[in-house]
Amino acid sequence: MLGGATTWHLERITPDLAQWSSVRNVLYAGRSQYQEVEVLETASFGRCLVLDGKTQSSEADEFVYHESLVHPALVVHPRPQSVCIAGGGEGATAREVLRHDTVSRAVMVDLDREVVDLCREFLPDHHQGAFDDPRLDLRIGDAGAFFRESSERFDVIVLDLPDPTEGGPVGLLYTGDFYTLLRSRLSSDGVLVTQAGPASLLNHHEVFTAIHNTLSQVFPVVASYSVPIQSFGEQWGFTVASLGPDPAALSPDDVDGRLSERGVEGLRAYDGVSHGALFALPRYLRKAIAEETRTITPENPLFIF
Amino acid sequence: MLGGATTWHLERITPDLAQWSSVRNVLYAGRSQYQEVEVLETASFGRCLVLDGKTQSSEADEFVYHESLVHPALVVHPRPQSVCIAGGGEGATAREVLRHDTVSRAVMVDLDREVVDLCREFLPDHHQGAFDDPRLDLRIGDAGAFFRESSERFDVIVLDLPDPTEGGPVGLLYTGDFYTLLRSRLSSDGVLVTQAGPASLLNHHEVFTAIHNTLSQVFPVVASYSVPIQSFGEQWGFTVASLGPDPAALSPDDVDGRLSERGVEGLRAYDGVSHGALFALPRYLRKAIAEETRTITPENPLFIF
Amino acid sequence: MLGGATTWHLERITPDLAQWSSVRNVLYAGRSQYQEVEVLETASFGRCLVLDGKTQSSEADEFVYHESLVHPALVVHPRPQSVCIAGGGEGATAREVLRHDTVSRAVMVDLDREVVDLCREFLPDHHQGAFDDPRLDLRIGDAGAFFRESSERFDVIVLDLPDPTEGGPVGLLYTGDFYTLLRSRLSSDGVLVTQAGPASLLNHHEVFTAIHNTLSQVFPVVASYSVPIQSFGEQWGFTVASLGPDPAALSPDDVDGRLSERGVEGLRAYDGVSHGALFALPRYLRKAIAEETRTITPENPLFIF
Amino acid sequence: MLGGATTWHLERITPDLAQWSSVRNVLYAGRSQYQEVEVLETASFGRCLVLDGKTQSSEADEFVYHESLVHPALVVHPRPQSVCIAGGGEGATAREVLRHDTVSRAVMVDLDREVVDLCREFLPDHHQGAFDDPRLDLRIGDAGAFFRESSERFDVIVLDLPDPTEGGPVGLLYTGDFYTLLRSRLSSDGVLVTQAGPASLLNHHEVFTAIHNTLSQVFPVVASYSVPIQSFGEQWGFTVASLGPDPAALSPDDVDGRLSERGVEGLRAYDGVSHGALFALPRYLRKAIAEETRTITPENPLFIF
Repeated sequence: MLGGATTWHLERITPDLAQWSSVRNVLYAGRSQYQEVEVLETASFGRCLVLDGKTQSSEADEFVYHESLVHPALVVHPRPQSVCIAGGGEGATAREVLRHDTVSRAVMVDLDREVVDLCREFLPDHHQGAFDDPRLDLRIGDAGAFFRESSERFDVIVLDLPDPTEGGPVGLLYTGDFYTLLRSRLSSDGVLVTQAGPASLLNHHEVFTAIHNTLSQVFPVVASYSVPIQSFGEQWGFTVASLGPDPAALSPDDVDGRLSERGVEGLRAYDGVSHGALFALPRYLRKAIAEETRTITPENPLFIF
Repeated sequence: MLGGATTWHLERITPDLAQWSSVRNVLYAGRSQYQEVEVLETASFGRCLVLDGKTQSSEADEFVYHESLVHPALVVHPRPQSVCIAGGGEGATAREVLRHDTVSRAVMVDLDREVVDLCREFLPDHHQGAFDDPRLDLRIGDAGAFFRESSERFDVIVLDLPDPTEGGPVGLLYTGDFYTLLRSRLSSDGVLVTQAGPASLLNHHEVFTAIHNTLSQVFPVVASYSVPIQSFGEQWGFTVASLGPDPAALSPDDVDGRLSERGVEGLRAYDGVSHGALFALPRYLRKAIAEETRTITPENPLFIF
Repeated sequence: MLGGATTWHLERITPDLAQWSSVRNVLYAGRSQYQEVEVLETASFGRCLVLDGKTQSSEADEFVYHESLVHPALVVHPRPQSVCIAGGGEGATAREVLRHDTVSRAVMVDLDREVVDLCREFLPDHHQGAFDDPRLDLRIGDAGAFFRESSERFDVIVLDLPDPTEGGPVGLLYTGDFYTLLRSRLSSDGVLVTQAGPASLLNHHEVFTAIHNTLSQVFPVVASYSVPIQSFGEQWGFTVASLGPDPAALSPDDVDGRLSERGVEGLRAYDGVSHGALFALPRYLRKAIAEETRTITPENPLFIF
Repeated sequence: MLGGATTWHLERITPDLAQWSSVRNVLYAGRSQYQEVEVLETASFGRCLVLDGKTQSSEADEFVYHESLVHPALVVHPRPQSVCIAGGGEGATAREVLRHDTVSRAVMVDLDREVVDLCREFLPDHHQGAFDDPRLDLRIGDAGAFFRESSERFDVIVLDLPDPTEGGPVGLLYTGDFYTLLRSRLSSDGVLVTQAGPASLLNHHEVFTAIHNTLSQVFPVVASYSVPIQSFGEQWGFTVASLGPDPAALSPDDVDGRLSERGVEGLRAYDGVSHGALFALPRYLRKAIAEETRTITPENPLFIF
């Protein structure tokens, strides 16, 4: 029934739920300055980047994650030229951003040089050469410090950070204070998108609805969506916040038209049809978002399991 | 990291992937005439019906499964009065069908009396009294034989059968021959919907796309959709086939209007907004459906893992 | 490779090691006044009593555990007439004690009436009617209080208690203070035996060697031994402490002669040949015992994983 | 409760029982000409050699396995000078054989050059330089062919082969025919020892008792013994067959005297005290051996799970 594999990766979803994926090889296992880092070769998902025991992305379905993270925000902006990516060590977020030929400058700020170097070496199908694109300006450092210290404004900011965990380095990057800072670093019509944690039936209450609510107090337009990421073992959430148009108002033709104008090709998950479905969450998620009252602050942070 | 639970249910997804859910109690474990039957009380999903080791539905998310199975098909039919359900032992499919006050007769044909009796006893939150509705006509028997032997026509037929497995009793109920028989048992504008197996990135190729293709050769209008069913550990697929209107063409207002007219209340997953999103599959699924060439026949059956 | 089972019991050995045993049924799962209680029917071991997630004994190998716990201590005593059992809720320790026809009185003190009642109901192959033997005097209560409040002396005291765990009820029953009290409750030539926790290569350091060392400071003769208990997933330890002869000095013929004189029949693990082997621990265990310097006191208790 | 590890090795014991050990790293994973080969770094056992999914030995407890395999056979021979090892790719069996300074020649015949090379590279604590001992004559090839083609006689033959599995390369090396051949390759007073598969309560019937019975029909003196090998998750069996003295008749002083005369030092599991205990199997194993009637032949081979 189960195959013959004897090495398995345990992806913890909640204390009472986990996904178990067979491992063909461990390409790297070590500890960087900031976190435990593994690059696993799994039977189901190919190569996976695992930080502190949580899968960040896999060869098999990173396209779902990264296309869904990047394109709704870039498409809703009328003409994104400058983009800032916080996190995104695999280089795949940059890869998707750089597909839009309107983008002339993409700053990527990642905390962990070792992770970036490991991804360049072990995950070529993730970055596909994005690190070598002359438009990419890679900075190693804390994204919070970067935005405090620089006054540069961006058309789109993409937060592709690990989940907030107790004691982890990124908890402050999911607070209203930080979102207020980011709003001041956006140009007019600027758009922010963040990965927003698990959005499945069991655990959308962990951070997903609270991130939505927190952004709603800072931005005039906020829309959340989710997609299944099988290597994570669950639905995953994203929230886009806009100073300009509402992404949920774009028609399929609008979306396809913009992708085409900007030379975006080769997408496997996202297009105009998908765009509309993303924002049509099932009723229980819409209800949970509508009823959410928590706001994430430095004094009242939230952490995932 | 994992909680203290020491009893776990293993939900096999592929030979190299499984979901592991902690078990609070085993309410029933035995073998019926047809299959292994368990009723588990899990920490994450409450009570689960497990047949031959595969979760059929859980208290926590059966509403997503059953609302998604039933309502698109019933809504697209202008006025569903007679409905036939094949399978559906938990009684929850009947429960959703009977929400539509247009329905005056619902025949439910399930093979396994012991499973039906166990569900009545152990899964009251599933059936919620549907078995006592005077409109329900419960028959114990083989659905294939039922449709061959009766010439009754229905407005909607709902196939809520276990997945086709090698040597299992329902393989023939996923073939073009059977679908042709069912078409002859539908009234004009009649609609058929079937659960269609896993629709996740890794295993939509098992049966989902082939069921779509097989139905396409029998019905003029066929549309597939998927929803996340967390207790199954993956996305789940459904295919609706219509002799009348196309479900994908209904607007959110059409859907909400029909639900309202028919007195359908208390849904938690499905409404007009959700309806549209269901049929907007991600690009890789649309591509897989479009490229599928397999047809399921008695001579060339397909089975899931 | 693994069979078709989908419900499994996880027996935690260390944070990095566990045994996984397939479950056919959960006969009981609940919480008593003192602990989580499960009676599992497993494929490998038959019915298992599980307290706070740890297997206490199984139908398949309880005979190894209970024969090994009871007979060395009873055999080394020249003529055991009165025996006190602390713990032993399954009734199997009493069963083994009562095999010796010299025993005219066996007091059994168990804390948890619910566990005793559940064992009487669900584990008939464990107790085999021992609870009905007129020589057995069953008391429900704390063993520590029993020995403090009664001045009765016994020829043999058998401690069949759960492992000491942080916050658990039996930590004080593994301390030098308690052993000193027990010494005063033994007749001349009296013998004490206690289950002494895991004795496997990986975790004999948890409590096994320290129990030995603690008893050595209270009794003139102390001898430890271990047997494999497959349902525990590891070797298990026992320590016998004597005011009279040394059990390790008995010859196989001495042992078999005493068993025969006392009418002890039907043993499956223990006899004269086994007796000698029990006390001949592998070199690494003898070394670990010899080098142990920890003494367990109420102020410096020890707990297992 | 379980630690934070997310990569685990599954050691299958039976279809309904497995041990789960956390993995720190996969040092090697690949397929040799003959088998799947992994070198895992586990938290509990250090580096493990895993062939076709089964642990062959681990840094933590290989000393128990290899000392128990080698020394009883060498000690019972009055003066072992020439030894042949079949299998033993890790080099640890050779290491133990070469501790006896009477040994002037040790031929080691292993089928799989890649495994031997991987062990030399990744398992230095296993071989401890044994491969460089000038007394060792390493041959790569089939042990069956070696003994058929060479007429050399040895004082001791040590069979350190993988378990017999269906379709595996070593099934014929556990048959009476092969044992008869080996007897003819022993000098007078020659001794044969073989690893003899699992000897735990649940699965000593797989091959252990049948190997004993098969050897009993070829050799005048046969004795079996078992030790706990925690990295295998169970007791492990060995059988020694002698043309000379009976190993079970040696006293502890005899054993310690011979070890001392031959300069054998640094043992951690085995000595005179252990020797006697090895052969005093628990009653149920003695009974199972006594009642065994199966003989392993090429026509009626036996395989382990």
